[in-house]
Amino acid sequence: MTDVCMVVGAGAGIGGHVGKRFAEGGYHAALCRRSDQDGLDRMVAEITASGGSASGHLLNAVEDGSIEEAIAQIEAEVGPIKTLVYNLGAQVGNRPLADTHHKMFEMGWRLGTYGLFRAAKILMPLMEKRGGGTFLVTSATAAVRGNNGQHSHAAAMAGRRMLCQTLNAEFAPKNIHVVHILIDSAVNAPDTLGKLLGPERFAKLLEAKAHGKDELMEPSAIADTYFHIAHQHRSAWTFELDMRTFSDTAWWNHPVDL
Amino acid sequence: MTDVCMVVGAGAGIGGHVGKRFAEGGYHAALCRRSDQDGLDRMVAEITASGGSASGHLLNAVEDGSIEEAIAQIEAEVGPIKTLVYNLGAQVGNRPLADTHHKMFEMGWRLGTYGLFRAAKILMPLMEKRGGGTFLVTSATAAVRGNNGQHSHAAAMAGRRMLCQTLNAEFAPKNIHVVHILIDSAVNAPDTLGKLLGPERFAKLLEAKAHGKDELMEPSAIADTYFHIAHQHRSAWTFELDMRTFSDTAWWNHPVDL
Amino acid sequence: MTDVCMVVGAGAGIGGHVGKRFAEGGYHAALCRRSDQDGLDRMVAEITASGGSASGHLLNAVEDGSIEEAIAQIEAEVGPIKTLVYNLGAQVGNRPLADTHHKMFEMGWRLGTYGLFRAAKILMPLMEKRGGGTFLVTSATAAVRGNNGQHSHAAAMAGRRMLCQTLNAEFAPKNIHVVHILIDSAVNAPDTLGKLLGPERFAKLLEAKAHGKDELMEPSAIADTYFHIAHQHRSAWTFELDMRTFSDTAWWNHPVDL
Amino acid sequence: MTDVCMVVGAGAGIGGHVGKRFAEGGYHAALCRRSDQDGLDRMVAEITASGGSASGHLLNAVEDGSIEEAIAQIEAEVGPIKTLVYNLGAQVGNRPLADTHHKMFEMGWRLGTYGLFRAAKILMPLMEKRGGGTFLVTSATAAVRGNNGQHSHAAAMAGRRMLCQTLNAEFAPKNIHVVHILIDSAVNAPDTLGKLLGPERFAKLLEAKAHGKDELMEPSAIADTYFHIAHQHRSAWTFELDMRTFSDTAWWNHPVDL
Repeated sequence: MTDVCMVVGAGAGIGGHVGKRFAEGGYHAALCRRSDQDGLDRMVAEITASGGSASGHLLNAVEDGSIEEAIAQIEAEVGPIKTLVYNLGAQVGNRPLADTHHKMFEMGWRLGTYGLFRAAKILMPLMEKRGGGTFLVTSATAAVRGNNGQHSHAAAMAGRRMLCQTLNAEFAPKNIHVVHILIDSAVNAPDTLGKLLGPERFAKLLEAKAHGKDELMEPSAIADTYFHIAHQHRSAWTFELDMRTFSDTAWWNHPVDL
Repeated sequence: MTDVCMVVGAGAGIGGHVGKRFAEGGYHAALCRRSDQDGLDRMVAEITASGGSASGHLLNAVEDGSIEEAIAQIEAEVGPIKTLVYNLGAQVGNRPLADTHHKMFEMGWRLGTYGLFRAAKILMPLMEKRGGGTFLVTSATAAVRGNNGQHSHAAAMAGRRMLCQTLNAEFAPKNIHVVHILIDSAVNAPDTLGKLLGPERFAKLLEAKAHGKDELMEPSAIADTYFHIAHQHRSAWTFELDMRTFSDTAWWNHPVDL
Repeated sequence: MTDVCMVVGAGAGIGGHVGKRFAEGGYHAALCRRSDQDGLDRMVAEITASGGSASGHLLNAVEDGSIEEAIAQIEAEVGPIKTLVYNLGAQVGNRPLADTHHKMFEMGWRLGTYGLFRAAKILMPLMEKRGGGTFLVTSATAAVRGNNGQHSHAAAMAGRRMLCQTLNAEFAPKNIHVVHILIDSAVNAPDTLGKLLGPERFAKLLEAKAHGKDELMEPSAIADTYFHIAHQHRSAWTFELDMRTFSDTAWWNHPVDL
Repeated sequence: MTDVCMVVGAGAGIGGHVGKRFAEGGYHAALCRRSDQDGLDRMVAEITASGGSASGHLLNAVEDGSIEEAIAQIEAEVGPIKTLVYNLGAQVGNRPLADTHHKMFEMGWRLGTYGLFRAAKILMPLMEKRGGGTFLVTSATAAVRGNNGQHSHAAAMAGRRMLCQTLNAEFAPKNIHVVHILIDSAVNAPDTLGKLLGPERFAKLLEAKAHGKDELMEPSAIADTYFHIAHQHRSAWTFELDMRTFSDTAWWNHPVDL
């Protein structure tokens, strides 16, 4: 049976490219996203056209039962999930506390922390029974420092990171590889960054930083590292790594002219 | 008018002693806890008997509106809250994922992270209007590392820590001092540790480690540092500090015999 | 016999004010610095004039034997050193690698890391024999992140921090309190910042940020916290704390307009 | 001309295997170690026998000029160094302060921190002129926490880590990829762990943990990740990652039975 790589949060950025990379590596890519059936169909078609195996699943991750049902369905209809890519963002932009509403703060937690917990509750026992598996968790700088305006996002991502640590502590010895991947630069992703900026500003940004300049993170490049890390020999597992474009200042630095 | 120090989570451990210490320092101590009216009354009586000013308030912090109403009531009836001590724990012991239920995980977040957010939503604007204030937030080792079995607690405390960082980033320049205090050893606290262990084991522990041995953290000693930090000159504010008993191994170390 | 507080690096900033604060608290302040006998004499005279006890010692800390001899002399002539304040900076400004010479890099290590090791080699056994003591180590943001241009300084300060952790791991259970204090803002210190900027720029900076604005760290305010931390009850010791002025962006943040 | 991967610290563990892996990937492996010409010759012969390109170089890295000369020689005789693997350890076992001698502490710094600085002083300008390069720096848990008995090692490795951060801050925008790789478990390395334990205890350890159990880190597995990271697309560079065997407790955790 084909190994399945389930991607929760499979937009046109990291999620979709990781799905594609795993499909190229012989996995069935089970791509899950909240909306845009057309976009989802296109991603599945693209993978299938190049000889890969993929399926698309719409799910609203914040709804109780949604991730759970998708996992059950994929396991029943496609095959055992060997790798889960938890790639849901929870960014709401920089907002003062006064504009960070209770529902927004709770939503951050539901997407950022609780959804991962819910997925682990269902999948970890299945993986344990099968003798192994992999959790690749996309994360953000906000997991390690709370910048001005990031009340909801930082609390959510920090919860995500510590949950990854507790999952790792319990499940690594059971042969389940948990990885916390800290993405520290903007990603060339039309579905997220593109929508945030709008078409015009996004086009300008691409002009300035992409197109061979490599100053925006290319999701296909990120996906290569996801795939590598997921296939590390178990005597040499990475739990945490950061990634950023060469031209960016790391989160712990601030720009200094020498 | 007397400055008010409001303590959310005023049991017989850190919370109660911090309240007492601020009362000795001239504040009115508004002590809030979930239950045990008798215990609360005794703490208030003890402070009053030694010439201090205090009041007791029962509130169930996980209920929406509870902290909010207590703040409103204290501000209306007692005076402006100058210092908030957020001292709610969210520890549920070490539990495998299988025994960490959804409600438990959510409760961890409600007590550990969301309650602080709710308090800040109400109090920060009041403090800002008054030109200043102090948030002292008790935290735990779980805020910085996710140990085995700490799924709920670590996610909740990490969220708390990052929320403190975002609050600090926005409100320190507005003269509001936010402090994240990482308590890294067991505290001599009958209401929490005592209840967790039961009377017999707690008595044995006290025999072994307290009574002049100083191997359990004394909440009155912790309270002295809370009071000092709350009164630092604003040109020299501490955002984060750890505390542990001299005989304990710091969380980042493991025991090594030399 | 009077307890001695020995300050290595007793200029007109943190070092001198910490000495003064400990003298006010009943200690003999043994003030050590590399040069400026006149400045040293004035500090001693100022302390003595207000009824305190102090002595001045010139020493070149990078020379092998210098700190060692000063410790021996102070122990012999004044009394047992209860508190060591290691307050030597190793900042050489932001310099590209090309301008960071081998001698400069080594000097950073000698002042930043090795001098503390040498002091600990001599003093720890004495303190252990006496049943306790305190090491207060001034440190800098560079101990936790290597900013552009900080090749020498960051390596030196990170070594200092980790050495503090190992000293703490071995000596805290022997009742010796080691504290790593991360100073994260500029300090109103004529001997260091003042010399770095020159009189004119320093005067302008004071005009802009000091004089009641509190946007430069006041060393007397820092000293109050040093004194408090040095006197924490041993069941509630702090190993690490940061300090910055209320108006400054913490090192892990970058400025964001909301 | 063939790209060169220079390995400083090319024993039979990580260093040798990384050299071999880069040779398999088309590089010339320039293997440098302090002693054991025979072992060095065998490694070179092994690589050559499988069709790769390699050379061996004895150098005593603590001697001023040694690394510098080796770099000059390799650049002159073999070709431009595209990747430097700095793989010198500085472990001296767990020793109380009393047994950590001044020379030992200094030697830790010379191997752990200063040698990397010296290599960077020579190589960074060459790489910058050529438009890019890679520094892969092996590091240890001691870089991020100072355990009991690690006075020399922790100070040295923390200095190494912060130096990596400053190098990254200055040179990443110049297309030079600096990576700090934190090895957090024991490695199956006869030249280091084997010598530390002696043949009998090492054989027992292998019996208990290696041989298909994967509880010792396999250096060939580590080498695969070094090679991957060195070839990340520059829009998605990793600065720091940790590695440990699946069965090990991460450094930030302590063992807990659930």
